[in-house]
Amino acid sequence: MSISCVDFVLGSWLHCELPSGGALNITTMSAYLNSSTDAPNLLVELYQTTPTSMILILDLPPRKDILLNPDYLYPKTKSKLLSQTCTNKDTKLDRHRQHFQKLAGVTPYVSSSLYIRSIFSPTAVLACIESDRVEEMVRTHVSPIAKEMLKTWLDFGPFGERVVCESEKACLKMRDGVSKKKTIEFELGSSLPRIFGPDTANRVLEVLREVF
Amino acid sequence: MSISCVDFVLGSWLHCELPSGGALNITTMSAYLNSSTDAPNLLVELYQTTPTSMILILDLPPRKDILLNPDYLYPKTKSKLLSQTCTNKDTKLDRHRQHFQKLAGVTPYVSSSLYIRSIFSPTAVLACIESDRVEEMVRTHVSPIAKEMLKTWLDFGPFGERVVCESEKACLKMRDGVSKKKTIEFELGSSLPRIFGPDTANRVLEVLREVF
Repeated sequence: MSISCVDFVLGSWLHCELPSGGALNITTMSAYLNSSTDAPNLLVELYQTTPTSMILILDLPPRKDILLNPDYLYPKTKSKLLSQTCTNKDTKLDRHRQHFQKLAGVTPYVSSSLYIRSIFSPTAVLACIESDRVEEMVRTHVSPIAKEMLKTWLDFGPFGERVVCESEKACLKMRDGVSKKKTIEFELGSSLPRIFGPDTANRVLEVLREVF
Repeated sequence: MSISCVDFVLGSWLHCELPSGGALNITTMSAYLNSSTDAPNLLVELYQTTPTSMILILDLPPRKDILLNPDYLYPKTKSKLLSQTCTNKDTKLDRHRQHFQKLAGVTPYVSSSLYIRSIFSPTAVLACIESDRVEEMVRTHVSPIAKEMLKTWLDFGPFGERVVCESEKACLKMRDGVSKKKTIEFELGSSLPRIFGPDTANRVLEVLREVF
């Protein structure tokens, strides 16, 4: 058991008054692993745009090309991560996705960036929630499922036992590098200046670029 | 201009009476390219399960890992394929996806196989259509958009001018190989025996395995 495979953890709590009178509240937590493991990263994001609407992202984004590495979908760990078999509908993580899909007021969230869409796993929870009881939905549905995903991720990543050979390490390092750079460029680099203006955004982005 | 980059084209028209009294009608056309180009493949699939419901898949599945190759999203050809810029919502192919998303009676289609979900591009049209006028929807929406996608694909693949170096060719060959093998295993290998019984399915699968 070791947390030495965690590259860094990024948490953000952003609040921004909107010209329209409302407010934008963003809560995110992402954990990025280093190349000593090929376990997935962790992504928890909540964007509350109005008192009755929220965008929810819960995912363990894969760190390998799944098309080339189908076994990544059913890894050999103590808790089988993405599926028991690839065609089994009732997989552990896919159950969470299905849970949100079935809730009233929930529609799929699709990022405007094609690159960001490509980051997510096939079991990602990507949901637009419209409800008079958003707070209650967070307590009843989002919170317990996010905790379950965190537990799965901890078992799999920081406390998992995945061995990576040297050539795989180089591949992971390169893929992680490109993916982090492009995430800054396409996501934070376009949203932060819009929300906070160029000066504040640039100060934050400068720090993030160093860590990413 | 050359069609020498086409590995093979697979078309299928399947009709199967269901024990419940209805019928299953499947129409598919897929085109697989070889490693002389890195242009995407072509996928057109229609599954009519009842007279009022249909699953529609229209896509140009990428043949590279997008996370590692973000430029694949905006390739240098005469017709820019997937997007003008990666953050631009109004991309050519994404417009088709958005068109279907907005139609009444259309909900997102999610494959039961996690591997098959990973095959699609971020602009794939993956739609469950419920309508009393399915035939009309095919004429009005599916047919013209499928033709536009075919034109984009032809400009980009068989009649495109993409040059691939030797090391890229090897990567494409390996990725295409795994992806075709797994598509047979997870999709056709599980659906055909269910529809036609093991004997007929095995005869078809044996031929497909040789070509795939």
